[in-house]
Amino acid sequence: MAAMASAGSAHEERYSASGDHAYKRWPRYRAASEGLQNYWYPVAFSKRVGRKPVPVTICGERLFLIRHDGKAFALDDRCAHRGVPLSMGKCWFAGTISCAYHGWTYDLADGSLRAALVDGRDSPIVGNKSVRVRTYPVEEHGGVVFVYVGAGEPPPITHDVPEDFFQPGVRVRGWLRTRKGDWRYAVENGFDEGHSTYLHRGVVWTWIRRKPAYRVVHVEQEGDWLVRTVDDVVEQVDYPGLGTWPHGFRPWQRNVVVRGSVRLPGWVRIQWPDWTAYEVFMGTTDGAHLSFMFAVSHARGLRAAWFGLRFWLYIRWAYMWQFNRQDQQMIEQVRIPPERLFRPDKSVTVWRAHCERNARGMQGPASETAVHLSDGDEPVWDDSDVFDESDVPAAGPG
Amino acid sequence: MAAMASAGSAHEERYSASGDHAYKRWPRYRAASEGLQNYWYPVAFSKRVGRKPVPVTICGERLFLIRHDGKAFALDDRCAHRGVPLSMGKCWFAGTISCAYHGWTYDLADGSLRAALVDGRDSPIVGNKSVRVRTYPVEEHGGVVFVYVGAGEPPPITHDVPEDFFQPGVRVRGWLRTRKGDWRYAVENGFDEGHSTYLHRGVVWTWIRRKPAYRVVHVEQEGDWLVRTVDDVVEQVDYPGLGTWPHGFRPWQRNVVVRGSVRLPGWVRIQWPDWTAYEVFMGTTDGAHLSFMFAVSHARGLRAAWFGLRFWLYIRWAYMWQFNRQDQQMIEQVRIPPERLFRPDKSVTVWRAHCERNARGMQGPASETAVHLSDGDEPVWDDSDVFDESDVPAAGPG
Amino acid sequence: MAAMASAGSAHEERYSASGDHAYKRWPRYRAASEGLQNYWYPVAFSKRVGRKPVPVTICGERLFLIRHDGKAFALDDRCAHRGVPLSMGKCWFAGTISCAYHGWTYDLADGSLRAALVDGRDSPIVGNKSVRVRTYPVEEHGGVVFVYVGAGEPPPITHDVPEDFFQPGVRVRGWLRTRKGDWRYAVENGFDEGHSTYLHRGVVWTWIRRKPAYRVVHVEQEGDWLVRTVDDVVEQVDYPGLGTWPHGFRPWQRNVVVRGSVRLPGWVRIQWPDWTAYEVFMGTTDGAHLSFMFAVSHARGLRAAWFGLRFWLYIRWAYMWQFNRQDQQMIEQVRIPPERLFRPDKSVTVWRAHCERNARGMQGPASETAVHLSDGDEPVWDDSDVFDESDVPAAGPG
Ligand code: FES
Ligand code: FES
Ligand code: FES
Repeated sequence: MAAMASAGSAHEERYSASGDHAYKRWPRYRAASEGLQNYWYPVAFSKRVGRKPVPVTICGERLFLIRHDGKAFALDDRCAHRGVPLSMGKCWFAGTISCAYHGWTYDLADGSLRAALVDGRDSPIVGNKSVRVRTYPVEEHGGVVFVYVGAGEPPPITHDVPEDFFQPGVRVRGWLRTRKGDWRYAVENGFDEGHSTYLHRGVVWTWIRRKPAYRVVHVEQEGDWLVRTVDDVVEQVDYPGLGTWPHGFRPWQRNVVVRGSVRLPGWVRIQWPDWTAYEVFMGTTDGAHLSFMFAVSHARGLRAAWFGLRFWLYIRWAYMWQFNRQDQQMIEQVRIPPERLFRPDKSVTVWRAHCERNARGMQGPASETAVHLSDGDEPVWDDSDVFDESDVPAAGPG
Repeated sequence: MAAMASAGSAHEERYSASGDHAYKRWPRYRAASEGLQNYWYPVAFSKRVGRKPVPVTICGERLFLIRHDGKAFALDDRCAHRGVPLSMGKCWFAGTISCAYHGWTYDLADGSLRAALVDGRDSPIVGNKSVRVRTYPVEEHGGVVFVYVGAGEPPPITHDVPEDFFQPGVRVRGWLRTRKGDWRYAVENGFDEGHSTYLHRGVVWTWIRRKPAYRVVHVEQEGDWLVRTVDDVVEQVDYPGLGTWPHGFRPWQRNVVVRGSVRLPGWVRIQWPDWTAYEVFMGTTDGAHLSFMFAVSHARGLRAAWFGLRFWLYIRWAYMWQFNRQDQQMIEQVRIPPERLFRPDKSVTVWRAHCERNARGMQGPASETAVHLSDGDEPVWDDSDVFDESDVPAAGPG
Repeated sequence: MAAMASAGSAHEERYSASGDHAYKRWPRYRAASEGLQNYWYPVAFSKRVGRKPVPVTICGERLFLIRHDGKAFALDDRCAHRGVPLSMGKCWFAGTISCAYHGWTYDLADGSLRAALVDGRDSPIVGNKSVRVRTYPVEEHGGVVFVYVGAGEPPPITHDVPEDFFQPGVRVRGWLRTRKGDWRYAVENGFDEGHSTYLHRGVVWTWIRRKPAYRVVHVEQEGDWLVRTVDDVVEQVDYPGLGTWPHGFRPWQRNVVVRGSVRLPGWVRIQWPDWTAYEVFMGTTDGAHLSFMFAVSHARGLRAAWFGLRFWLYIRWAYMWQFNRQDQQMIEQVRIPPERLFRPDKSVTVWRAHCERNARGMQGPASETAVHLSDGDEPVWDDSDVFDESDVPAAGPG
């Protein structure tokens, strides 16, 4: 991953030198190479978090999760003494974690230093208010652990997480992975209309689902979500001098209508007829990202069991693995700037503009977040046919 | 390779700080860390290039080869849309390649955008003259694909490639590899008289070929080639205080007279009694290089079959692999500056001076190609016994 | 290792930007990221050094060891011609090494160029006094090869190496490894009182050796050594709100009294009842270090054989491997600055202050060794309860 990251930055450097920045039009978005601050993020399945610390890197920050007395906690994964990861430590006393190196023992609830095990009862370091590790607000909903990454008082988690997760009895299944590639490329891909009718031909998932030649869409805002809304579906096109696209016609394929949506801080939602797929992309560090995919069904009883079977036998393999692997291969290969956009990229540019205006905070190396483009700074080519202020829904969500 | 490259540049940095540059006397040559521009280069065997794109990195540029209707094409391996390698794409329509991500479809002949498959017949991006990918001139001779890397109209390929490749019915065998190490070290090694009687003792290839203690050579120009011409062969030397070199005497070894030559942009030629070995070294990126080795024989009929047998049973293994591996091990280990040259290095310095004066263009990171040494800039030690302007043949070729 | 090193420096960079340097109080110590100059160092077991060159990296310098006529030699591992490592070469003539590439032949004793094998008897480069490779002073004691790394005339080796190594008939066993992590973290860990009663619970070595809750120590100077001297041993502590530490009581465990000491340039000594463990930590490059562990016993006859058996069956495995692996895991994970010290760190800070004042020379990249903190430069927090000038023994050794 280090190799990839440096290749990426060498590429960016070459173009930066010529003044042709990536995301020139969106300087705040550009600065967020490690993610968006001040949001609640899903970071683990509840059942994976127990007495053994679970390290997580998100928005460039290293933290760990641990459970005590049924409650999950998240703390900075760095001992204040000499910087050893606390996730290498152990829980010797209820509600605390002791660092593996010299036994500094921190309170899970507030990160204060409760004891320095090799310095006795009268250790002067204990009680020093400036010696503590940062704690992160944690909540659990639908079997998922959420952490608030940011400064200040967190907003209610319902502002940041889809309501599906708060429904009583909801069963959430899914898959958490660290993947190569910029988290922004992953979100852009998730909401990108352009590739959706092209890239995914030839995998099992689309074997019975017809892909038209293309769709004409516009973006609407529904509450916190930006939704791609289909204005027209064109089944086949005859390109002059080339021929007909798509090739062939498979009579067994059904038209499946799905709605694709995106929301801050990086949730993508695909609404299948009887279940909903969510995917959240979160910056980590070194140009990698976390991908947390969810399958949510509101079926009950036998139908719920049937959905569970479908998930383990089919959805997880054909959708979450094979289908999404195609996206992942592209996300790893995107090299911008320069980029030239075209009409279907409106879904991408509307998301960028939305993020630019409404995202709470940016996370990136100090040098990047300091970027300020002068007012007169203009894109190097005219993208007015692709990006138009009027495409962006007026009311910015929360 | 990344690790190696950065080790190399750290080394260079240390010495640069002290003002002791590599190739100080040859600033244009020094700038060419990624190769020489404006030349025809061999990049693949014809039979390896078909409908499936073949990616190649040369002179710091990424391109891919593909064949349509019997003709080979070379294009920049980067989609103009969002930078995904076109070599991941497919040929859906005759004479085009479609990018894997969103189906932008380019003409193989001129790199123009013929269609954006998910944007319909009226896509505004199609027909925009500024949206295209670069194409490279391609020719095929002797079963080898040649690409012109450079700006402007290419010269006739016969200016850059040995005439052997243009002879009707010539059969060229060989081996193409990406290897670690600077392409210049590889060319210098290929024409270096000094190591030729020393390094290659102890491999199968030299078992029956006698290596003298050393040869005295001078360099002559024959057309486009610089040729090492032997003035004297010294079979054995008695070094005072040390002893006799080489050790031992192997009565079964024959004296084999070979001629070694070099020419722009990096061809080395070794003329064996009944066949000719060519090796071309081409900069790629990250301090690596392409090595394309050829064995050319003009034998016909049964003798041709006999040569083919020798090639597959012996030359490929004992010469191209074992013998050349010794060179490769050295090329990877060269760490200059500083360097101290000695008399046999005349072959190396004459090549450098030739390249400095006559090479058409340099390829390197912008910061390096901008190097300009002031007139008063002098080497840090007196190399006048090794390098003398009068050693360089006067008439610079092509 | 490269990846680790760059992670480390990125970490340092982030904190340097905020003015919070590591080792702020100890600028000379801080500059010594690659080790201490002007000392004798153990670099190999004598029996491992023969006719085949053995490369060693120490204090950022690459050298190689070789034996001729019973005597060990150390030379810079870089041919003066074009930088190929001499350790790839061979000994064709007594008392010399010939470079693998062009046969430059150097004298092992003084590094002078004795012959250039492919340039004949009258080679002008031979006899040029400026063409030589650096040689390092070498001595062998107790079956160990020591090299002097530094400038000028070396001091007597007895100034730098414990006297045990000079006793007639001493038998030294041990283990040499290259390990990740800063050599200073390794020395600090070796003399660190804090972790000694905490980290090593749960390995075979401590199964029969009781670890108290903690010890109160002060540091005394004995000749060249700083010695941790125990003032008090506290077997068990009841921490308010937490409970009793350590947990449980193992009646079969013995109290074993050991003395821990440290001396320049990075020797740690642990005195077990009937043998002594030494460990030397030496900077290499890229944030790695050499660890040379020794077990020295003065037993004779049958007791010596019995110790040998214990070493191979038990000490090497349970102490040098399993026990020390715990230290190694911590050394690799230390991330400072920032750091917050506590009372048991006095052993660490006294060592740092000792090194700051008394070490002969520092080795690090030029940019680091140039660090000079202004007089008014103060630590960012008050460490006066941890570090007190009066803790440092007054008389600085050698
Ligand atoms: S590093 Fe955590 S207690 Fe020392
Ligand atoms: S990146 Fe090639 S078509 Fe989009
Ligand atoms: S590099 Fe050592 S002899 Fe040439």
